[in-house]
Amino acid sequence: MEAAEFRRRGKEMVDLIADYLENIEQRPVYPDVEPGYLRSLIPEEAPEEPDTYEDVVKDIERVIMPGAASPACTELETVMMDWLGKMLKLPEDFIAGTHGQGGGVIQGTASEATLVALLAARSRAVRMILASDPQRPETGITSKLVAYSSDQAHCSVERAGMIAGVRMKKIPTEQSDKYAVQGETLRRMIQEDKAAGLIPFYFCATLGTTPSCAFDHITELGPICNAEKIWMHIDAAYAGSSFICPEFRPLLNGIEFADSFNFNPHKWLLVNFDCSTMWVRKRSDLIGAFKMDPLYLKHDHQESGRYFYTDNSLFRSLKMWFVFRMYGLKGLQDYIRKHVELAKEFESLVRADQRFEISADVVLGLVCFRLKGSNEVNETLLKRINNGRKIHLVPCQLSGQFVLRFAVCARTTESRHIREAWRLITQLAEEVMQELPH
Amino acid sequence: MEAAEFRRRGKEMVDLIADYLENIEQRPVYPDVEPGYLRSLIPEEAPEEPDTYEDVVKDIERVIMPGAASPACTELETVMMDWLGKMLKLPEDFIAGTHGQGGGVIQGTASEATLVALLAARSRAVRMILASDPQRPETGITSKLVAYSSDQAHCSVERAGMIAGVRMKKIPTEQSDKYAVQGETLRRMIQEDKAAGLIPFYFCATLGTTPSCAFDHITELGPICNAEKIWMHIDAAYAGSSFICPEFRPLLNGIEFADSFNFNPHKWLLVNFDCSTMWVRKRSDLIGAFKMDPLYLKHDHQESGRYFYTDNSLFRSLKMWFVFRMYGLKGLQDYIRKHVELAKEFESLVRADQRFEISADVVLGLVCFRLKGSNEVNETLLKRINNGRKIHLVPCQLSGQFVLRFAVCARTTESRHIREAWRLITQLAEEVMQELPH
Repeated sequence: MEAAEFRRRGKEMVDLIADYLENIEQRPVYPDVEPGYLRSLIPEEAPEEPDTYEDVVKDIERVIMPGAASPACTELETVMMDWLGKMLKLPEDFIAGTHGQGGGVIQGTASEATLVALLAARSRAVRMILASDPQRPETGITSKLVAYSSDQAHCSVERAGMIAGVRMKKIPTEQSDKYAVQGETLRRMIQEDKAAGLIPFYFCATLGTTPSCAFDHITELGPICNAEKIWMHIDAAYAGSSFICPEFRPLLNGIEFADSFNFNPHKWLLVNFDCSTMWVRKRSDLIGAFKMDPLYLKHDHQESGRYFYTDNSLFRSLKMWFVFRMYGLKGLQDYIRKHVELAKEFESLVRADQRFEISADVVLGLVCFRLKGSNEVNETLLKRINNGRKIHLVPCQLSGQFVLRFAVCARTTESRHIREAWRLITQLAEEVMQELPH
Repeated sequence: MEAAEFRRRGKEMVDLIADYLENIEQRPVYPDVEPGYLRSLIPEEAPEEPDTYEDVVKDIERVIMPGAASPACTELETVMMDWLGKMLKLPEDFIAGTHGQGGGVIQGTASEATLVALLAARSRAVRMILASDPQRPETGITSKLVAYSSDQAHCSVERAGMIAGVRMKKIPTEQSDKYAVQGETLRRMIQEDKAAGLIPFYFCATLGTTPSCAFDHITELGPICNAEKIWMHIDAAYAGSSFICPEFRPLLNGIEFADSFNFNPHKWLLVNFDCSTMWVRKRSDLIGAFKMDPLYLKHDHQESGRYFYTDNSLFRSLKMWFVFRMYGLKGLQDYIRKHVELAKEFESLVRADQRFEISADVVLGLVCFRLKGSNEVNETLLKRINNGRKIHLVPCQLSGQFVLRFAVCARTTESRHIREAWRLITQLAEEVMQELPH
C-alpha cells in the first residue's frame, strides 16, 4: 500500500475502532459459536489475485466479530496456517483441515519455534523410552539425550538446547559441500553417540543459514532421522517465504520426512513483526508436551480437539489474512522474485569487478562477497561502509574468512538502490586499498 | 482517551506514519548515538500529572528517532522499567540507573517471566555447585534440583518446571491461612528434600493468586530462601499494578529478599497486551543464562554492559511511555482505586444477601463468592450466567468448593455495571434455586 492510500485507509480504520469502542455495550461479552464456525465463512485457499480493501474490512464484522477475540483468533490462525501451508505445497499431513492430525501455529520468532519443537521432541523421546522401560527415572533419560544441528545453524538453536537442558552437538560442514550438512556426517555422529550410550532424539535442519543461506540436504537427512526415530525440525526462518514460488519450492524437497517446519513471514513475506509460522505433523506431540488443565482454563469445547494452543495466538493471524488478501499469491510471488533479481543484479556487479569475489552461491536475496585479500582489509571496508550510514551490512565468517553480507530485504528496494550501494562500496574499497597494503 | 479524541489523535498518528514512510530515504540507516544517550533526554521519573498528547508525540522525533529502532527500544525499555520500578518503590537494587547491577526487562507474559527466572536460577545453581565441585557432571546436578511454588500458583509455574526439566513441588496451603504459603511449610519441605539428597534452588512466590487473589507471606519466606541460596521469584501478574498506590504497597513488603519480580501492566495498568514487566537484582544472572555470541550479533558497544537483552524488546516500552505520560501517576492510581472500590461495592451487595457467601478476602478487584449450598447449584448458576452473555465469570475451586469469581477489569466499568450484574446474578440464582433442591 502506498503512503497516500495508507493515509486514507488508516483513518478509516481509526474510525472503525472508535465506532467499536463507542458501541461495545451492545455486543455480547462471550461469543455464541461452535468450534470450526469460521472455516466455513472464508475460502479454503488464499486468493491468487488481490482482494479489494473494502472486502477485507467488511469481513471483520462478518467473520471475526461473531467469534470475538476467542475463539476467532485461534480459528483464523488455524485456517491461515492452512492457507500458507497450501501456498508452500506442504504435504497433506501438515494441513489441519477439518480432520487432519497436523497443522500450524504461530510463534513469535524462529528461536521460539526451535525451542518448542525441541521440547516436544524431548517429551516424545522420554515417553517412548518409558513405554518400553517404565522403571527408568526420567532425569536419567534426559541426561542421555543428544540433539544435533549444523555448525552453521543460528545461535538460537544452541540456546534452545541450553534451555531444555540437553546436549546439542554441532555437525561440521565444509566449504566444498556449500556449508550444507551431509547425510554421511549425521549418520556417523549418531552411530558414535549411540555406541557411547547416548540417545539421539532431535535434529534441527536449516534451510537458508544465517551466514551464507546454505541448505542442509534434508532429502538425505530426513530418512536417517525417520529410521532412528529422531525428530527432524526444519528451520527456514528466512528462506521459507521463497517456497511459495514454484521455482524455489524444490529447496523444500525432503519436508515429507520432517516432524516440524518453521519460517518467518515477518522476515520476507510482508507480515509485520512478530509472525513466525510453525507446522507440526502431529498436533498431539505439542499438546502432550505442554498440556495444563486448571479449572480456570476449562471451556465447553475442551474435548473437541480443535483448539491446540491457548497461549500463542492473539490475532497475529489477522495480519496474515490482510496481507494474503491485499497482495494475492501472485503479488507475494512477484515480491519474492523481485528481491532475488535484485540480489542477482548485485552479484553481477561484484563478479564484474576483479578486485572482489563471491563467497557463496547466491540462491535467494543474500549475496556473500569480499575483497580478494586479507580479513583486515575486509573488516576495514565494512567499518567504512557502516560508518557512512547510507547502507548497513552485517558480516559473517566462512571457513576463516571475514565475509560481507549484502541482503535485499526492504519492501521499497529498487534497482537504483542496488547500483547506488555498489557505487558506494567500490568507492570506499578504493580508499581502503590505497591505505592498506593489499 | 475517549472515542472522540481517539478519532482525532489516531488520524494524526496515521499521518505521522505516512510522513515517515514517504521520507524514509532521508534518514540514516543506522543510528549514530552512544550507549545511554536516551536517559538524559527524558525525566528520571514518571510524571505525577498527565503530560499533553502534543508533548508526547513531539518526543518521538526528539527522543526515539535519533536511536532509530535499536538501541532506542532497548534504552527506552530500561528507563521505563526504572520509571515503573520507582512508581512501585522497588528497592534500589532493582533499578538500573546509570550504574546499577539490577534492572528491568519486558517479557510477553508472566508465564515467560516465571520460566526465564527459573532458567536463570537453574544456571546459577549449577554454576555454584560446579564452583565447589568442578568434576560433578552437569546433568547429575540438574536431576537433583527441586523448585517450589504454592498449590495455588498459576499452572504456568508447573509448566515452567516441565520446560526446564526440573522437579517442581507444590506447597500445600490452607483455607485457615487464607491460601497463603507459610514459612514453616516451606522450611519443612526444604529440610526433607535436602535430607533426601535433593538441591532446593527456586521458589516462585505468588502475590495475588489466580483462584482467590491470595498473597504468600514473602516477609517470612524471603529470609528462608536467602539463607538457603534459593532464588525467590515473585509472580504478581495481576496484583502488581496496585502496588503503585501507597495503601496497597505493603502487600509487596518482603520484595527486598527477592531475586526477581514480575507483574503484567497489560492486565491492570492500561498498557495493551503484551507487556509483562520483570525486574532482576543482578542482570548478570540473566545474561549468564542465555548469552550467545555469534559474529552476526556483535556490535561496537558489546562490552559496555548496558544492553542485556537482544531478543525481547521491540517497542513494547513505547506503550508504557505513552500510558504513563497520558495518565500520570495520579491518573493510574485513580484507575486502580476505582476498580477496588467497585469490587468492594460488589462485595457489599453479596454480603447483604443471606443466600450468598464470600469465599475469600476481597483485597483488590476480585470477589470470590458462591451460593450457600452445593457445588451443583453453583455450577448451574455459573452456566446460566455465562449463557446469558451479558457478563462472564470464570470459576475456581477453593477447599473443594466450586466458587464464582467476579473480577472488575474493564477500563470502562462503572457502578451501574456492578449493580446491573448483581441484579442479573440474583435473578438467575432465584431461578436456579427454585429448580434445584437447595
